[in-house]
Amino acid sequence: MKDQLFPHSQLWQFALEIFLKIGCPEDQAREATEVLLSADLRGIDSHGLARLSGYVRLWEARRVNARPDIRIVHETLSTAVVDGDRGLGLVVAPRAMAIAIEKAKQCGTGWVAVKNSNHFGIAGYHAMKALHHDMIGMAMTNASPLVAPTYSVERLLGTNPICVAIPAGRQPPFVADFATTTAANGKLEILQRKNKKAPLGWIQDKKGNPSTNPNELKDGGALVPLGSDPEHGSHKGFCLGGWVDIFSAVLSGANYGPWVPPFVSFLAPTADPVGEGIGHFFGAMRVDAFRPSDEFKMHMDRWITRFREAKTVEGQDRVIIPGDPERESEGLRMKQGIPLNPRVVDDIKELGKKLQVQF
Amino acid sequence: MKDQLFPHSQLWQFALEIFLKIGCPEDQAREATEVLLSADLRGIDSHGLARLSGYVRLWEARRVNARPDIRIVHETLSTAVVDGDRGLGLVVAPRAMAIAIEKAKQCGTGWVAVKNSNHFGIAGYHAMKALHHDMIGMAMTNASPLVAPTYSVERLLGTNPICVAIPAGRQPPFVADFATTTAANGKLEILQRKNKKAPLGWIQDKKGNPSTNPNELKDGGALVPLGSDPEHGSHKGFCLGGWVDIFSAVLSGANYGPWVPPFVSFLAPTADPVGEGIGHFFGAMRVDAFRPSDEFKMHMDRWITRFREAKTVEGQDRVIIPGDPERESEGLRMKQGIPLNPRVVDDIKELGKKLQVQF
Repeated sequence: MKDQLFPHSQLWQFALEIFLKIGCPEDQAREATEVLLSADLRGIDSHGLARLSGYVRLWEARRVNARPDIRIVHETLSTAVVDGDRGLGLVVAPRAMAIAIEKAKQCGTGWVAVKNSNHFGIAGYHAMKALHHDMIGMAMTNASPLVAPTYSVERLLGTNPICVAIPAGRQPPFVADFATTTAANGKLEILQRKNKKAPLGWIQDKKGNPSTNPNELKDGGALVPLGSDPEHGSHKGFCLGGWVDIFSAVLSGANYGPWVPPFVSFLAPTADPVGEGIGHFFGAMRVDAFRPSDEFKMHMDRWITRFREAKTVEGQDRVIIPGDPERESEGLRMKQGIPLNPRVVDDIKELGKKLQVQF
Repeated sequence: MKDQLFPHSQLWQFALEIFLKIGCPEDQAREATEVLLSADLRGIDSHGLARLSGYVRLWEARRVNARPDIRIVHETLSTAVVDGDRGLGLVVAPRAMAIAIEKAKQCGTGWVAVKNSNHFGIAGYHAMKALHHDMIGMAMTNASPLVAPTYSVERLLGTNPICVAIPAGRQPPFVADFATTTAANGKLEILQRKNKKAPLGWIQDKKGNPSTNPNELKDGGALVPLGSDPEHGSHKGFCLGGWVDIFSAVLSGANYGPWVPPFVSFLAPTADPVGEGIGHFFGAMRVDAFRPSDEFKMHMDRWITRFREAKTVEGQDRVIIPGDPERESEGLRMKQGIPLNPRVVDDIKELGKKLQVQF
């Protein structure tokens, strides 16, 4: 079954109406829609429209609060902790990032840890907000445990993504946005749909042996940290995933490690939580808190150009700068439409029927 | 040839006298010695005594200034840029980290970018300085280009390490200190000495093909980013290495990418530098800028205990928490002595003879 193309505006309008139907205030519904659709535009299909019905099910299960009272519960000049009041991460995260940016304006940098939130969409959306202010943006989040640390057979970490977005001058920005595992869960879902095997090094079975079965997680298996195995540095991927978990949740007071609540509504959250909801961490650093912006940008242009024009291995025409593929996808999909998998289309249509929103 | 054991105090005294001989002021010589020996103690043998003669050769070549005027050239409440005045990184880095800590005391966090510096030893030493102040510490540095980004046959990045050190309560701290490549260069040097092959996924040859020859770098080959190949996420390792390079050098005004000066004195620095010396980046975040320290530490203890006690794959007795191996090495070597490779011993003896310091 082939993917079908939909214009961005149609999907945007649909998502907006869904968020309004579940009771989001209009400004928050718009922001959530913007975050959600940015994933579809940027080619991170697992984090866009495909997740919308999941968010609604969490709302139905009363695990998402559509009218949260998002507030700062602790702060210093350069830091804050935000309580998301069980809101959609799509709504809580932009608010927290705005606080980080405000703090950076005042004292050079701003750092905000968030508790009591939910899935925040793609990290890239939030980090990139800083770019408009000539700032470097950072965003990370923990997530439901699907990843086994090196030598563990237990799933203790989420795919815990990090994004670092750095402005340039004439060149597009450097935007590194990646899960701290060898492969993101979205890639497994694609293989499952296509009935294909996964490469060795992405997954382990319930005993910790390497596996190529993309359905292994349903049988006690796990994703593995970036690096795949100890000989290839999986302990470094574990370092990264642990770092994200601690910054997002131990600093903020959210749940961490195996206690992070599952994203799917049919799995109950743990009975003995160690914190509130899931956690995020955001940063904003004013470039001119270090050196004049135009100087910085000139050197970023030089950095990017030098790397992009490097001599390549045979069969590749250029070195890909972090952010290139997503930006190219965004341009293309804005023009040609967003491809949705037939299963996602069915899922959305059903959601529309349930909430009486036209698709 | 077997390694020989030396007491920590003997090596410490020797290194101190060498630093004094080349003209370091006494307090700086002591700090440099402390940084250097911490690598030997923590089992990162490539970054300890084994590097001392290299530092001296750079000083002889007038590329290291033994009496640097290290100063802040730009700052805000939470940030600073430090000019290392071509000093030893072993001396410049502790000064910069101290500034980050001071800023964190004032406004919650402190972030310091450094230019015009040299190799700073192990990142872990610097990041861990924050722990004594109930702060999270971060340290990163760029380095001579030995690493080819994904799809490149050119070496454009260093092994660009990151360290994140996070305090705990009764448990030892979480200290993740790692090169952003699959394998650090030190590991290759060990294979070279032992005449052994490297695992596939560590190195590529001059055409970008995977290689097992640990001497490949002498023939135009390169180390590869964490992840090894595109299918296993090497683009993520490239993201990490690029991030470190930009924070360390584009923010500070140091050289970046292929322009980073070589560590070895027999290779000349580039004729068209884009900045000054090599660059570092440091961060300090007060834990109580987010939540009360005792609460944070109690949860860190719980995090560490839960992960360490996870069910393991057969044949492994525990999950290793970042920092465990280095701390265990430190305890052992402080008691039993520091093992040095015979080649390193010869190198040190020759250095002692040259500078008339008793070994």
